[in-house]
Amino acid sequence: MTKTNLPLNADRLWADVMRLADITDPARPYTRRSFTALFLEGRTFITRAFADAGLVTRIDAAGNLIGRIEGTDPKLGVIAIGSHSDTVPAGGRFDGIAGVATGLEIVRALRDAGIRPRHTIEIIDFLAEEPSEYGLSCVGSRGITGILDNKMLDLREPGGEKLRDALRRVGGDPDRLDLAKRDDIRAFLELHIEQGIVLESRFLDVGVVTSIVGIRRIEIIFHGEADHAGTTPMALRHDALVAAANTVVSVRREAEKLAAEQLAAAGGDYFVATVGILDVDPSGSNIVPGRCRLMIDARTTNPALTKRFVETIDRESLAHADAARVARATFATLSDGPPVACDANLRAALRQGARDLGLAETDLSSGAGHDAALMSRIAPSAMVFVPCRAGKSHAPEEWADREAIAAGAAVIYQAVRDIDQSLT
Amino acid sequence: MTKTNLPLNADRLWADVMRLADITDPARPYTRRSFTALFLEGRTFITRAFADAGLVTRIDAAGNLIGRIEGTDPKLGVIAIGSHSDTVPAGGRFDGIAGVATGLEIVRALRDAGIRPRHTIEIIDFLAEEPSEYGLSCVGSRGITGILDNKMLDLREPGGEKLRDALRRVGGDPDRLDLAKRDDIRAFLELHIEQGIVLESRFLDVGVVTSIVGIRRIEIIFHGEADHAGTTPMALRHDALVAAANTVVSVRREAEKLAAEQLAAAGGDYFVATVGILDVDPSGSNIVPGRCRLMIDARTTNPALTKRFVETIDRESLAHADAARVARATFATLSDGPPVACDANLRAALRQGARDLGLAETDLSSGAGHDAALMSRIAPSAMVFVPCRAGKSHAPEEWADREAIAAGAAVIYQAVRDIDQSLT
Repeated sequence: MTKTNLPLNADRLWADVMRLADITDPARPYTRRSFTALFLEGRTFITRAFADAGLVTRIDAAGNLIGRIEGTDPKLGVIAIGSHSDTVPAGGRFDGIAGVATGLEIVRALRDAGIRPRHTIEIIDFLAEEPSEYGLSCVGSRGITGILDNKMLDLREPGGEKLRDALRRVGGDPDRLDLAKRDDIRAFLELHIEQGIVLESRFLDVGVVTSIVGIRRIEIIFHGEADHAGTTPMALRHDALVAAANTVVSVRREAEKLAAEQLAAAGGDYFVATVGILDVDPSGSNIVPGRCRLMIDARTTNPALTKRFVETIDRESLAHADAARVARATFATLSDGPPVACDANLRAALRQGARDLGLAETDLSSGAGHDAALMSRIAPSAMVFVPCRAGKSHAPEEWADREAIAAGAAVIYQAVRDIDQSLT
Repeated sequence: MTKTNLPLNADRLWADVMRLADITDPARPYTRRSFTALFLEGRTFITRAFADAGLVTRIDAAGNLIGRIEGTDPKLGVIAIGSHSDTVPAGGRFDGIAGVATGLEIVRALRDAGIRPRHTIEIIDFLAEEPSEYGLSCVGSRGITGILDNKMLDLREPGGEKLRDALRRVGGDPDRLDLAKRDDIRAFLELHIEQGIVLESRFLDVGVVTSIVGIRRIEIIFHGEADHAGTTPMALRHDALVAAANTVVSVRREAEKLAAEQLAAAGGDYFVATVGILDVDPSGSNIVPGRCRLMIDARTTNPALTKRFVETIDRESLAHADAARVARATFATLSDGPPVACDANLRAALRQGARDLGLAETDLSSGAGHDAALMSRIAPSAMVFVPCRAGKSHAPEEWADREAIAAGAAVIYQAVRDIDQSLT
């Protein structure tokens, strides 16, 4: 394992990440939410950096900021590299931004090395990857792939502005979204921090992402009766929280069982499930809860596991409702995104790149969603993960080392050189 | 069982209850919260009704509205009857008010019958029995019994007003609370709706309350780690909600077990326990819960049962925290009121009164707290429960029949006549 003599400039890449980190709400680092003045300030910085690197910059109809350098054989199509420059509130300095800066550094490194790629190279800063006040994530990558529809554009933030008007405000064109759709991208590559602890705990340099989890969100609502907590005997209660709590216990037990099964199997799949929201109504210390709502987030690389999980939770939550003498009023799938397999050829190129550089790599699945999952709908796509400290993300303490980011970027640099030759 | 020829006027009593019900926030019936303009409007009505019945009215230093008629032998002391005229938000028409109107009707009925009691009779409308914005219940009965202290008086409502200033606003004198303390009350009697379904389901007219439950409130807080719900494997989670949900299940199971044991025993005690509040933080569908807080309300006529219950929940909640790899940061008793036994002589007088009237009665414990529980600190006290529909209370659909209230009031009338002779 060596990280010296990388084919790009680690300090220059790091400086871009740090300068973008400085563009934050000072009261709440690191905050640069999409559609805000700070977000646009960040993009002004990126635009200037793209221009300095010789890229021609535009904003597409879906609000993506794209830097482009023509290939020597433009009809071969485009190799795209990118991620996003927006953050969650009080988020970190690396999530998304490291992937945009990586694309930029690769273009500069190619230029420094006197290499003119045959393919056109584009660096994409996707609009609003993180969930925003408009209640939608991956706005830009949805636009590029043609699935940003009118219903989504009509979403409003709490102040009342529609997403379509916000999109116009940042330079997009919601009335001509078809212009954003692409069929000329031959490969898409994204670097991202792992947001987990596999690489760190195993002292590995990079993870080559095999697949990105599908996410299923299920809402369950139990209706009981809000009764006096003093005068209602135990045997006469219709306590919605009792049904909900038993369901949380079921979710945990079933998720642990499925995850353990997969861990035990060689090449097993990934499965996690979480109850992150549980609302109690009326929520008074002396009132038997009359209504409870909970949200389950189940993620997997293999939809068959989620199917088994949902069947079990469906059956058990109904039994818990019966036992507590309450009604299970709702058991609804709110969203169900399929898992996405990363492109085998690109993964091979990334693995080879890591080996050429003497870096320790492993295959890894992604438990988080990414722009690359959307991009895989229109182009072969793959991702490189780099280690981040203690797996912490979406928080100010999010951290990735300078050398770790540079190593991951170098792997993509190698892969770009490789596929620029092999893809015809 | 007969309810005709009662020794008081059922229609006149009912009319008072209904007129007070009309004094409500029209947008949110039935709302007449303590310290508000509507509350004072209700008291103006009660003051006029007291005066019409020949009672001399005053407000004591603790803000209680008291109507008084001197006995023929004043040195015998006072027989007091009462309850409260404030409501919870969107509460009912009977909780509290029926007890105040009962006292008033008994005085009128005695006058109509040409009876002049030997004891002085007082009707007390206790201030702020329900929890108010100041975070304290039973303000007036605490004052009369001498346990309304400076710490309580310094409590503030969200707008910033202190309870002591609110007390002054409604005619009390927080600086001379010792004037409210009483040692001349020889008996206290309170009529209240049952707020449960025992009387209704057994077709009984009245319940003679044997004891009023003690209430223990326990707060438990679990601290885990708020992690990404997608990238944190099941085996590496510190999910505070999992510990909290398992604790809710433990509370339910243990409370059911204790309640069933007591039901199976002849003359068994009453026990119920409830988790009415469970807060999840950060509460995001894609975030493993980092912190959970829950509130347990345990009520019993026998503190030994609560002791067993708390020992079990203490042990099991700690085990649940360990199993979920989270810390149980807090396990705190926030309040612990003892159960109160009603006075045996007064209970005997009430039972005899019911028999004399041909009414079907039973002994019953009270799962709710009442002013009578406070009053028992300074005087022999007892309560009569009357049936209420489906046990519903603290809600607009709260309902007690005209005849049911009159029957309960008549039982107290009979007991007042009895003890007026027997107490010397």
